[in-house]
Amino acid sequence: MFTWADDATDEQRARVPAELARLPGLISEIRAYRFGSDIGVMAGNYDFVVNADFDDTDSYLRYAEHPEHLRVLTEHIRPAISARAAVQFQM
Amino acid sequence: MFTWADDATDEQRARVPAELARLPGLISEIRAYRFGSDIGVMAGNYDFVVNADFDDTDSYLRYAEHPEHLRVLTEHIRPAISARAAVQFQM
Repeated sequence: MFTWADDATDEQRARVPAELARLPGLISEIRAYRFGSDIGVMAGNYDFVVNADFDDTDSYLRYAEHPEHLRVLTEHIRPAISARAAVQFQM
Repeated sequence: MFTWADDATDEQRARVPAELARLPGLISEIRAYRFGSDIGVMAGNYDFVVNADFDDTDSYLRYAEHPEHLRVLTEHIRPAISARAAVQFQM
């Protein structure tokens, strides 16, 4: 989950889902990939979430360290957010 | 996502998934319900996550306001956590 930085432009906020949408075609470890903006029905929420499924921990780690994932993180996500919350869990 | 409070006991932390596991049998709006503890492979994560699917926003809101959900929140989750991060998004 992310919270957009106050000074993140509309273009920066729109670019994040556009870049994320490319990753399932580039990173074979991704089994399911869902993401989207908070719909605004509850107060105090974060702004955006990414929800991804992998076969196992090693597959997740290969995704986490994949150059295309790191590129989206470094170029598009980190410059646009002020807070991040994450959990990896076993289903 | 939650972070456990420093003073949350092992019993309190174990009780949350036990109580959550009852909700799909009690709240008909829940389509899918997954939750679990962070597996500890990334630094700075939250400790626990709940990931739930609903048909639509109204179904989510009925779940959010359902007495059994509120009971788990009030009696078991809120007393045991120090931070919460949430997003509702459309898939």
